[in-house]
Amino acid sequence: MVPPRKRRAKTAIHPRREFILGIVSNLPAEITVPGEDALTVLTRHVSLDMTACNAAILARMDSPVALIPQLAAHIVAAGGKRLRPVLTLASARLCGYAGGLRHVNLAACVEFIHTATLLHDDVVDESQLRRGLASANAVFGNKASVLVGDFLFARAFQLMVADGSLDVLRILSAAAATIAEGEVLQLVTQNDLTTTEDRYLDVIKGKTAALFAAACEVGAVVADRPEPEAVALRNYGMHLGIAFQLVDDALDYAADQATLGKTVGDDFREGKVTLPVLAAYAGSDETGRAFWRRTIEDSEQTEADLDEAMRLMAETGAIRITLDRAAAFAGRAKADLAIFPDSDLRSALMGVADYTVSRVR
Amino acid sequence: MVPPRKRRAKTAIHPRREFILGIVSNLPAEITVPGEDALTVLTRHVSLDMTACNAAILARMDSPVALIPQLAAHIVAAGGKRLRPVLTLASARLCGYAGGLRHVNLAACVEFIHTATLLHDDVVDESQLRRGLASANAVFGNKASVLVGDFLFARAFQLMVADGSLDVLRILSAAAATIAEGEVLQLVTQNDLTTTEDRYLDVIKGKTAALFAAACEVGAVVADRPEPEAVALRNYGMHLGIAFQLVDDALDYAADQATLGKTVGDDFREGKVTLPVLAAYAGSDETGRAFWRRTIEDSEQTEADLDEAMRLMAETGAIRITLDRAAAFAGRAKADLAIFPDSDLRSALMGVADYTVSRVR
Repeated sequence: MVPPRKRRAKTAIHPRREFILGIVSNLPAEITVPGEDALTVLTRHVSLDMTACNAAILARMDSPVALIPQLAAHIVAAGGKRLRPVLTLASARLCGYAGGLRHVNLAACVEFIHTATLLHDDVVDESQLRRGLASANAVFGNKASVLVGDFLFARAFQLMVADGSLDVLRILSAAAATIAEGEVLQLVTQNDLTTTEDRYLDVIKGKTAALFAAACEVGAVVADRPEPEAVALRNYGMHLGIAFQLVDDALDYAADQATLGKTVGDDFREGKVTLPVLAAYAGSDETGRAFWRRTIEDSEQTEADLDEAMRLMAETGAIRITLDRAAAFAGRAKADLAIFPDSDLRSALMGVADYTVSRVR
Repeated sequence: MVPPRKRRAKTAIHPRREFILGIVSNLPAEITVPGEDALTVLTRHVSLDMTACNAAILARMDSPVALIPQLAAHIVAAGGKRLRPVLTLASARLCGYAGGLRHVNLAACVEFIHTATLLHDDVVDESQLRRGLASANAVFGNKASVLVGDFLFARAFQLMVADGSLDVLRILSAAAATIAEGEVLQLVTQNDLTTTEDRYLDVIKGKTAALFAAACEVGAVVADRPEPEAVALRNYGMHLGIAFQLVDDALDYAADQATLGKTVGDDFREGKVTLPVLAAYAGSDETGRAFWRRTIEDSEQTEADLDEAMRLMAETGAIRITLDRAAAFAGRAKADLAIFPDSDLRSALMGVADYTVSRVR
């Protein structure tokens, strides 16, 4: 059985502050806390930026239509790891950005786009749980979730327009289109056991990694760094995002519900053809294959089938295969950062790549 | 009974063409065709632009994920009046735009945003019919409709970014946010007979008129005209859009299904609190009010109730009141254009304001 993921420490050591005339500066987070995971370390590197980003998120999701901030608060303010905006902030700082609050506002855009896709995902997947709480669609209904998702998406673009960089707009509008393409491709491959691993990779590059890549690239763009650094950060984000989603797909068959914060087995019940399923199908004997065809292709499932699916995953090494792939992509993410000089922040970004994989092992 | 709306002539007189080096020019549509409605006349004024716009729409909704163009084609290529892109094209020409194809590409953006909202609307409203055909959600399912709507919305922003005007981006991203606000407000006022007429106006300004206003304003912006002309076109679009939606809301109780191209009585069944309902409720006696409370507030409806609703609308003059309001807004739309010198094109735009109301009388 997989050990539960470490919980993020609730109170981080309070960093020194320098918050003058709209310039947010994060001092090096020299102090390490025993047992702290790498994401917490990275977040602490940009803790003041993140405080400003959270304030921007709350301020900009407001609307005279009260249901919008209510529903948005349910999902945005409920927390989550804020991994994507942290990546934008850390990427900007890694590139030496010190030009004001552009990175903060764009990190908020990234989180809005992410939140909009979560709202629509939960409607599409008919999910009942999100981050351990009832999902927005379960509380407010599908209609409100679709429409508030649209609002957050539009608001993200308004924020980007206010920022004024056409390069940033190009990167994030392309990411938004790619996310939707990935989600549609996922819908098309649902229940289809002939899906290839390449096609599965196209799905997760689109639905997850494209926004990770854009979030990181935007950091280099606001810092006005040369193209190779933007490309390096984009690649880092892409590889990190792929690793992240591979682990997420493994967790759907290998975590306990309290740790996962969403319903275990959701992917299985929806007939999503993820790498764990493809690997298990490939490694099963004829009896096992018949099981997968019945449960995934024909959507005929009984209560006991999830346990049997998890047993077959263990037997065929499907989870191990998936996590090995994730580890390889995490390794590529770390290598992408070689272009930058060694620093605590670079180490923290590399650490997050390892953390993404280790959280399940 | 309301006479059926005139159908748009299938083949318009072929205008002379001047299509050189990417410059599209529409020659004056001097020739009038007896019995032609004003929207057809306006569309003929920009017929070459519209041909180019339709080509841009088809080209830019493409994706390697085949379901996206398939579903988009179902709703985009199925036609519709293309009123919003026609407004962008005509506004640009009214402002003397002759700078290339920017207006064509932005008209395509406007149609994409509109199409995205239609896809999401039909999911939210659980509509089965759209433009006389099965709605996309009825054919492809809610999930695909939500996600392809997201794709078209993102693609619209990619097109705008390619255009490169931050003013245009500002106008259309604000419109997109306002549309979502209007839709959420509509959801909030559903089944609520205490909704005021002002609040109802906020709903239709948001969900419909904001995009009309933006579509027209963008025409002035690409032509680089001074602020007063942009404001005049924006106001024209806003007032036209309000008139348009008021008539649409009347038609939901006053049209026959074949003419309407959507299911008659949809608003009634969904408990949407539109002006016809508010006017009928205000003008009904206690028995009538009890009927509206049961059917709209409590959502308790029987088969015969739609006929009774339509009878009460006639008895209380609710449809007439709604159409009078629409006529007043159409009058304001026409007056907004007074700032422009008299021309055939200006007359055609004014004609569309009248047409918007007359299509139901």
